[in-house]
Amino acid sequence: MPKSMSKLPLKVVVTGAAGQIGYSLLPLLAGGKVFGPDQPICLAMLEIPRALEALNGVAMELADCAFPTLAETIATAKPEEAFAEADVAVLVGGFPRLAGMERKDLINKNTAIFKNMGENLEKYAKPSCKVLVVANPANTNCLVALSCCKRIPAKNFSCLTRLDHNRALAEIASKCKVPVNEVKNVVIWGNHSRTQYPDVDHGYVMKNGQKVTIREAVGESSYLDGEYIGKIQQRGAEIIKARKFSSALSAANAICDHLRTWLVTGTKAGEIVSMGVFSTGEHYGIQKGLIVSLPVTCTDGQYSVVDNLNVSDFAKEKILASVTELLQEAETMKAILNA
Amino acid sequence: MPKSMSKLPLKVVVTGAAGQIGYSLLPLLAGGKVFGPDQPICLAMLEIPRALEALNGVAMELADCAFPTLAETIATAKPEEAFAEADVAVLVGGFPRLAGMERKDLINKNTAIFKNMGENLEKYAKPSCKVLVVANPANTNCLVALSCCKRIPAKNFSCLTRLDHNRALAEIASKCKVPVNEVKNVVIWGNHSRTQYPDVDHGYVMKNGQKVTIREAVGESSYLDGEYIGKIQQRGAEIIKARKFSSALSAANAICDHLRTWLVTGTKAGEIVSMGVFSTGEHYGIQKGLIVSLPVTCTDGQYSVVDNLNVSDFAKEKILASVTELLQEAETMKAILNA
Repeated sequence: MPKSMSKLPLKVVVTGAAGQIGYSLLPLLAGGKVFGPDQPICLAMLEIPRALEALNGVAMELADCAFPTLAETIATAKPEEAFAEADVAVLVGGFPRLAGMERKDLINKNTAIFKNMGENLEKYAKPSCKVLVVANPANTNCLVALSCCKRIPAKNFSCLTRLDHNRALAEIASKCKVPVNEVKNVVIWGNHSRTQYPDVDHGYVMKNGQKVTIREAVGESSYLDGEYIGKIQQRGAEIIKARKFSSALSAANAICDHLRTWLVTGTKAGEIVSMGVFSTGEHYGIQKGLIVSLPVTCTDGQYSVVDNLNVSDFAKEKILASVTELLQEAETMKAILNA
Repeated sequence: MPKSMSKLPLKVVVTGAAGQIGYSLLPLLAGGKVFGPDQPICLAMLEIPRALEALNGVAMELADCAFPTLAETIATAKPEEAFAEADVAVLVGGFPRLAGMERKDLINKNTAIFKNMGENLEKYAKPSCKVLVVANPANTNCLVALSCCKRIPAKNFSCLTRLDHNRALAEIASKCKVPVNEVKNVVIWGNHSRTQYPDVDHGYVMKNGQKVTIREAVGESSYLDGEYIGKIQQRGAEIIKARKFSSALSAANAICDHLRTWLVTGTKAGEIVSMGVFSTGEHYGIQKGLIVSLPVTCTDGQYSVVDNLNVSDFAKEKILASVTELLQEAETMKAILNA
């Protein structure tokens, strides 16, 4: 028996699978980038009925990749088929923000979708299923799904801020002219929106084998407390301006980083990453019951919030503004759910 | 020094980098899928001037992937910058076949482009540069580039038929209901066009740890000598029909497979893959001086044509038809080059 067949397949659901992010993400999941070369994958791809033909084309291409790790492919518009006994769910499909749409309309549309996602997880997925929400508004969509799924613990739900985290690392690397793997421990706080706060106060850059704080390595507080924050917050818009399409390859890569750190490798000793996770009310004075991007470490498939960071007054104000936005989004979505 | 920086960067040029295949391919090359996690890459992306803005967006996204292996990114419309001291060149950019265009028009347009590519390789790339042509007509484009570049040996030039090869494996795996890594040694002969011949006569399927020939495992000669051949030849068109776009993710994956087998891992003992390579006149009675897809093994960064396959009369006829098409394409392009 080949080595790749010695483990049971892991069932990974991807929703909105025929979209642009899906097209970049699926070959990475199917090819072993997240779960490694010895873990067979059952890849369940969910789409709305009118995208099924395109999805079948993607399924053909995945077959044509001849991935040894791809044990089974499901392309379907039936949630019960996609979510049945799922181990991991990556929720990429959502309603996009169209021109002229208000944020409330966006939350309205997506609350209905993610209520349905939560109910599907509740009914069909394994109780141990790990969930990553990517579709915007990602934090609040994640909270909706979690609210509608009591069988899976809140700590199994997360939303993607690893793309923001990677952008925050890359910008410092470019500024300091060092390789990006020599920059560590930035933190994305709050909402995956323009209010997010990319915090460099706990980060460092490796210089000649020594850790130098980012503040010392960069040297310009005016840049770090001004232009830098704006650059990370606006990076998505800048890419849309250049490409005429939103980030797909870098989003897919960040999804893989998020899942691999959380579920496979864990974080290295001393390393911090950012994840949107359920706030328990125990950390940094943030209210219980929101999905908030926080500094975490991961080990054995579980994250722990890093609790001992010294947060400056400047940072507290920024974090508060983003959490306030999350509270408002949560109120909007609760009103919709209870209507 | 981190392990990833202990080797000198390898310079990889990708042309047509802002296109759909480029978008799927670049993160794989930058992220270590071909050259491994310890090989830093200098990724040089070439585009025509009007695609430069989109290319800059792709470069931003690659930065945002925070790949430890991506040492440098060049996004340019200047061939001298892209090709300077290149170690590997992946030529994806070409003139597409538009509605109503005859094959001669397509060859005309692309002969001009690939003459230019050959001249750039001649002037700027390392003499040891390895070249993979992807743009269609891939075999003839490769021959044009090779004809215009005397400094790099003919055995360093190749064109992509690994996607056809992977499709040929996947279809047998699906038919026999076995994992695709348990099917080996199909051969794609001839032109990367609808005349290509996917040959199963030398292939086998693993069943209970035993090699069973594909012909024995499938059992239906009428399928293997009819429907199967058509399916592989028409697979690209079938995917366009479903997706409304041509294959990009599976092409990018096949490019990685081709490069990795050729330049990094070699083939495993007893394993054969398909590559479009320069015919020396020594193999299977095929004329010298064409680029033809043939069965090869790879070791230490070099391919060798597998010379001892027993080719049936049926196969000979199919191969001859495809080689005849290649001869005609070569005559057309020579007339253009000499005009």
